[in-house]
Amino acid sequence: MTSSRNAVWAFGLAFAVLFVLSCAGSQNLGADEPNAGARAEAFVDPLPSWNDNATKARIVDFVRAVRDPDDPAFVEPSRRIATFDNDGTLWVEQPMYAEMAFALHRVKELAKVHPEWKTQQPFKAVIEGDKDALLASGHRGLAEIIMASHSGMSARLFDTIATEWVRDARHPKFEQPYTELVYQPQIELLRYLEANGFKTFIVSGGSVEFMRTFTEQVYAIPPERVVGSSIETRYELQGGKPTLLRLPEVAFVDDKAGKPVGIYKHIGQRPILAFGNSDGDFEMLQWTTTGSGGARLGVILHHDDAEREYAYDRESRVGKLDRALDAAAQSGWLIVSMKNDWNTVFAEE
Amino acid sequence: MTSSRNAVWAFGLAFAVLFVLSCAGSQNLGADEPNAGARAEAFVDPLPSWNDNATKARIVDFVRAVRDPDDPAFVEPSRRIATFDNDGTLWVEQPMYAEMAFALHRVKELAKVHPEWKTQQPFKAVIEGDKDALLASGHRGLAEIIMASHSGMSARLFDTIATEWVRDARHPKFEQPYTELVYQPQIELLRYLEANGFKTFIVSGGSVEFMRTFTEQVYAIPPERVVGSSIETRYELQGGKPTLLRLPEVAFVDDKAGKPVGIYKHIGQRPILAFGNSDGDFEMLQWTTTGSGGARLGVILHHDDAEREYAYDRESRVGKLDRALDAAAQSGWLIVSMKNDWNTVFAEE
Repeated sequence: MTSSRNAVWAFGLAFAVLFVLSCAGSQNLGADEPNAGARAEAFVDPLPSWNDNATKARIVDFVRAVRDPDDPAFVEPSRRIATFDNDGTLWVEQPMYAEMAFALHRVKELAKVHPEWKTQQPFKAVIEGDKDALLASGHRGLAEIIMASHSGMSARLFDTIATEWVRDARHPKFEQPYTELVYQPQIELLRYLEANGFKTFIVSGGSVEFMRTFTEQVYAIPPERVVGSSIETRYELQGGKPTLLRLPEVAFVDDKAGKPVGIYKHIGQRPILAFGNSDGDFEMLQWTTTGSGGARLGVILHHDDAEREYAYDRESRVGKLDRALDAAAQSGWLIVSMKNDWNTVFAEE
Repeated sequence: MTSSRNAVWAFGLAFAVLFVLSCAGSQNLGADEPNAGARAEAFVDPLPSWNDNATKARIVDFVRAVRDPDDPAFVEPSRRIATFDNDGTLWVEQPMYAEMAFALHRVKELAKVHPEWKTQQPFKAVIEGDKDALLASGHRGLAEIIMASHSGMSARLFDTIATEWVRDARHPKFEQPYTELVYQPQIELLRYLEANGFKTFIVSGGSVEFMRTFTEQVYAIPPERVVGSSIETRYELQGGKPTLLRLPEVAFVDDKAGKPVGIYKHIGQRPILAFGNSDGDFEMLQWTTTGSGGARLGVILHHDDAEREYAYDRESRVGKLDRALDAAAQSGWLIVSMKNDWNTVFAEE
């Protein structure tokens, strides 16, 4: 009888494993059945790279409350929208946004067929690596660099160029591809939220087409769940072939007050969780956490880990965190300390 | 020993049932396992409102081929994007787009606080029901009516107003809510595609926020999978309260050559199936069916059923189908005849 009982358990276990494996890709795993998630949590910590402290507890408590139909914090699965900034929230943004490094690289490549750039700012500054002159060119110079590197070609060609750069470029400090410099705790958090019925989105100031060259591979977030800045694009026939032509004109800036607008237009629902790391995320956090009906959570990643990554906030030119840091306390936004709350930073550490 | 074995099987069965039930909500049910779908099809026709003829066979063959890894037409589940026009493709668009009826109703309501409209075109024409004067006001008049009815209010207020109109309005011919006038065969097709690993999207010239008031309830397509035209929107604090303010300026027109652009910006992938019904869908069909790598299918719904719905094409002011009808033969687009290919038109017939 004992061995038969063991056989019974072995069968049960085998099916349970099959069940967990088979559903691992499902967005709504157990979303409507709180017990299933509770059972799974008893076996495996879904956030192993997060230290077991008050920060992690607040996130786990929020998720538990949101999926408990008897809790006033409950939110229907279809309304569980979570938005994440990209640069500095999901991957490294120092010493320069990856997309900016791409743009500078691209300008240097294009300079070969633009000899006039040798004497023309801001291109001269880029070619000569003259940081001061580049900064002096200001927003207008930056816009010129972005347009020169991002437009005047088909969508397909841009995708190829950006994909190759992302594959080949190396981060100046870590000497690894940027795609290796994504934060492991955030990957765990994305999957944890999805396993609890959330739909996850990236909402970034970066250009949506640049991000989509790596977001599916790196974050397992499909293209339609990436919201970003964009330039004007025109559909036309080129030699009889349908083509999307990227034009040198900004269509939408998905940063600061643009983030709630981008969310409204693209996602069509107010998030219940927003995760950012800079003042560019202020309005997204504000919009998210002032919503009504169930719990809301705003989270800010504080880069305070010079040893494993970088330490910066109020004074930084890239990813400045000042206004949002001041607002966090009175708004109830959760501050995540990279140094104290994450036991692992990068996936490959 | 026999009873123990039975217990083993009972356990196994219980877990198997649990497994199937738990995964039933998954978008990709059976997407990677062709046999599961084949088995299901043997029991239940997923398209009962479609007559069993060559039109239906072409759709079913396309879906079968796309999910067969051994077929050159195979497409990875993550690339199975299907886009559907809304007006005239998923619901009735005659004698006037529902959104246009909403706009005219709204102008009449607003006229109570705009006495000056009594002498001012195009508003005078709307108030007096003067169809000729309305038509004479042209595109500019139309734009004024759209802006007056769609902007100058918060996103929340617009949502409330549009939701109430959709709930209360009745179609002039069928005397039912517009939401009852969705095409049953298309609902079946949406579910059939999703059950076969497709991600379905609405891509319409209508405004995205108007559509989202009913698309989830009526088509079971969530807000983020609805792509449409939009107006400029500004995030601001009103009395300290975060608000999205709808401005009287067009941001994007998701019609004609705008559809591939809207798809590119929002979905980020080229569809493999597009379903439309008018010349406004020409470029979406062209963009979809000239893609490479696996099968592509363009489909046009031909309204040739005056008895059950409407019969119109080349001469119609609403939903004109002329250029796309000419292009269908040489492009290999499938023409669906409402009269001959659908045994049921509306869900509640």
